[in-house]
Amino acid sequence: MSDLQTSWVDSANSCESDFPLNNLPYGVFSTNANPPRCGVAIGDMILDVTVLEREGLIAVGAATIFDDPSWNRLMELGPDAWSALRARLHDLLALGGDDAVSGNDALKRKALVPMHAATLHMPFVVREYTDFYAGRHHATNVGTMFRGDENALPPNWLHMPIGYNGRASSVVVSGTDIRRPWGQIKGPDDAAPRFAPSQRFDIELELGAIVGTKSDGPISVAQADANIFGYVLLNDWSARDIQAWEYQPLGPFQGKATATSISPWIVTAAALEPFRCQTPEREVPLLDHLKDDGPMLYDIKLSVTLTPENGEESTIAHTNYNVMYYSAAQQLAHHTTSGCPMNVGDLLGSGTISGPAKENRGSLLELSWGGAEPFTLADGTPRSFVEDGDTLKLKGHAMGNGYRIGFGVCEGTLLPALKRP
Amino acid sequence: MSDLQTSWVDSANSCESDFPLNNLPYGVFSTNANPPRCGVAIGDMILDVTVLEREGLIAVGAATIFDDPSWNRLMELGPDAWSALRARLHDLLALGGDDAVSGNDALKRKALVPMHAATLHMPFVVREYTDFYAGRHHATNVGTMFRGDENALPPNWLHMPIGYNGRASSVVVSGTDIRRPWGQIKGPDDAAPRFAPSQRFDIELELGAIVGTKSDGPISVAQADANIFGYVLLNDWSARDIQAWEYQPLGPFQGKATATSISPWIVTAAALEPFRCQTPEREVPLLDHLKDDGPMLYDIKLSVTLTPENGEESTIAHTNYNVMYYSAAQQLAHHTTSGCPMNVGDLLGSGTISGPAKENRGSLLELSWGGAEPFTLADGTPRSFVEDGDTLKLKGHAMGNGYRIGFGVCEGTLLPALKRP
Repeated sequence: MSDLQTSWVDSANSCESDFPLNNLPYGVFSTNANPPRCGVAIGDMILDVTVLEREGLIAVGAATIFDDPSWNRLMELGPDAWSALRARLHDLLALGGDDAVSGNDALKRKALVPMHAATLHMPFVVREYTDFYAGRHHATNVGTMFRGDENALPPNWLHMPIGYNGRASSVVVSGTDIRRPWGQIKGPDDAAPRFAPSQRFDIELELGAIVGTKSDGPISVAQADANIFGYVLLNDWSARDIQAWEYQPLGPFQGKATATSISPWIVTAAALEPFRCQTPEREVPLLDHLKDDGPMLYDIKLSVTLTPENGEESTIAHTNYNVMYYSAAQQLAHHTTSGCPMNVGDLLGSGTISGPAKENRGSLLELSWGGAEPFTLADGTPRSFVEDGDTLKLKGHAMGNGYRIGFGVCEGTLLPALKRP
Repeated sequence: MSDLQTSWVDSANSCESDFPLNNLPYGVFSTNANPPRCGVAIGDMILDVTVLEREGLIAVGAATIFDDPSWNRLMELGPDAWSALRARLHDLLALGGDDAVSGNDALKRKALVPMHAATLHMPFVVREYTDFYAGRHHATNVGTMFRGDENALPPNWLHMPIGYNGRASSVVVSGTDIRRPWGQIKGPDDAAPRFAPSQRFDIELELGAIVGTKSDGPISVAQADANIFGYVLLNDWSARDIQAWEYQPLGPFQGKATATSISPWIVTAAALEPFRCQTPEREVPLLDHLKDDGPMLYDIKLSVTLTPENGEESTIAHTNYNVMYYSAAQQLAHHTTSGCPMNVGDLLGSGTISGPAKENRGSLLELSWGGAEPFTLADGTPRSFVEDGDTLKLKGHAMGNGYRIGFGVCEGTLLPALKRP
């Protein structure tokens, strides 16, 4: 495990900071003075890379790429450019590194923006969005509730990462309010469906992997791993009652289309490198094209909190990305088997990250066992699904020696349904 | 039913032409001399609208929009611009209309390109792709094969248009070769899955609706109808063996991700206006938000031909879009119920268009009843699924008095699988 790398931006050196020099995650921010552009989080500041690019202090590729509300352009330049930019940023922000910024007070004032004065936007343009179902505890829990004990894990589940195409247009950045959806709902005892606001609105705690390199045919697990640019926290908001009625036989559709929130900072695969870990042992061997090819999961601690309107924040779950059965690399490799073209900006949801214990469950559906066993908030009230006014926050970080690679927060507040859609 | 409108482009006045003055479909073409740009089909010619735009003979919006390899810019300008352009093109191409082109030989030579000298490209940028399952005969046939007689039509099917999100990156223009995919396959009697080329590769005859107006929340069926810009033929290539093993519980994924072919000309909703017809009577009433609001299907005759490598072309199916249970407007309205944002360039596949009789079936899966009852080609050979070297062609047109609104052809040839992906 590597140690904290020290920056001349003091706030980055705290072991409490999500954004030490070791991290350098990529976001898009605006201020009162400036429209959305690329920035890098360092401690409690944002480095405005458009300023450095204009000053000629960083140059990646021929054109200017940072005065743009997305990091897709950097991704398109390829892995060598990713490494070169990371190394250059590191040198400019390290204590004792290149003093072009640290030694120039006027430039420093222009290039460093306090995070509290900035608004964060979507950090990249989501080209297409795919959501997987690669956590064994989650698949078993949900399978048990939807299909009974005996059919909990579908027969294909141990052989390949099961996924479905989601809706890219519904992906929003943390902080965006979520509107409780209407939908067709039919309870098991209802004679006919009705059109009504969802009563079983839920979250899913996931990690999102961002494809940084395009591919036009099948790729190996190792190549897939190299093609992933970085990761974000992801909350796959889910209307369980809409989903239950619609999902046979073609899978989730409107139950998953209201919104998917992501955290605003892309934590690069490079920053997560020291935290790689193996997938669990296989109950049945994987076919060659999906076999593990080195450690491709990460040790990332994750938690979920729920705060009722004007209420107290409760931690309702904590888990770790290292429990997943399939890595993002295996998911991406599987995604390409049929020849499916993948593009820069494609987003792959990991699937809900639930651990073995009750308190490790990454969805309210599991935490309340479908509403049958409500869980208790810090103020003593019971809760089964998301209620109007609730704010849900996902948090995550990998823990190094004296530092953390943090993701920031992925949060959203549920607004009441429209009176009539 | 309206009559043929006469153009000074003679070839457009033949009752055999897909592209009379009544049609005016939008495509993207290139020539040896010019890169891809917007064009309009008229008879056996393509009107290069970039030439007319440069000459100041057509102006839609403030900027130039046609020197671009897509029609998305026109769509973004909205329905008034769509009508204005159609009216202006009609006037410029009508016999006895504005003679700015017809009366100027030099301009005519520059602006009219013989279709045989042009290469056709994707006519628009597909933003996201959704595929529905809205043909009752198809759903019943496939349901019977996959789940047995009693569970043929899923319980939700008569209440809403069932669909799933597909993969926009896999949509290709007619004429693009299709590579037989590899995938995980497990027959009902196999102990374990294997990774192998698909042996049950298929087509689906569909119509694709193109969303021309964005929406950010639930919209009515009438609004959805107004938001559809036009239609294309669509072949949803399907690997049935991959699909059968993967589709539970989250729906089709790699079995549908190899390719989806579309015809190169966008036939506008305006051109199809005279051919509107009603959906069939409802077995159970639809909920209010999905109720029919006027005739929103179209009377479009469709056919499929199969030509083996170096072989004879056989018509293997013929049907009509008017058999569908749900219109594209109902599908789009349903798509927005949860608040799902829709964007310009979103593509909605109708679902396979199978009619009541055996010869009306829009997939080989149905035509050969899962391979159990192979059908016979013109040369007498039996066929169950697509074989290497086969060329599949979808054709379609609405029939007016002495003219047809044709879609051109949507074709693709199957190449053998890669030796090893």
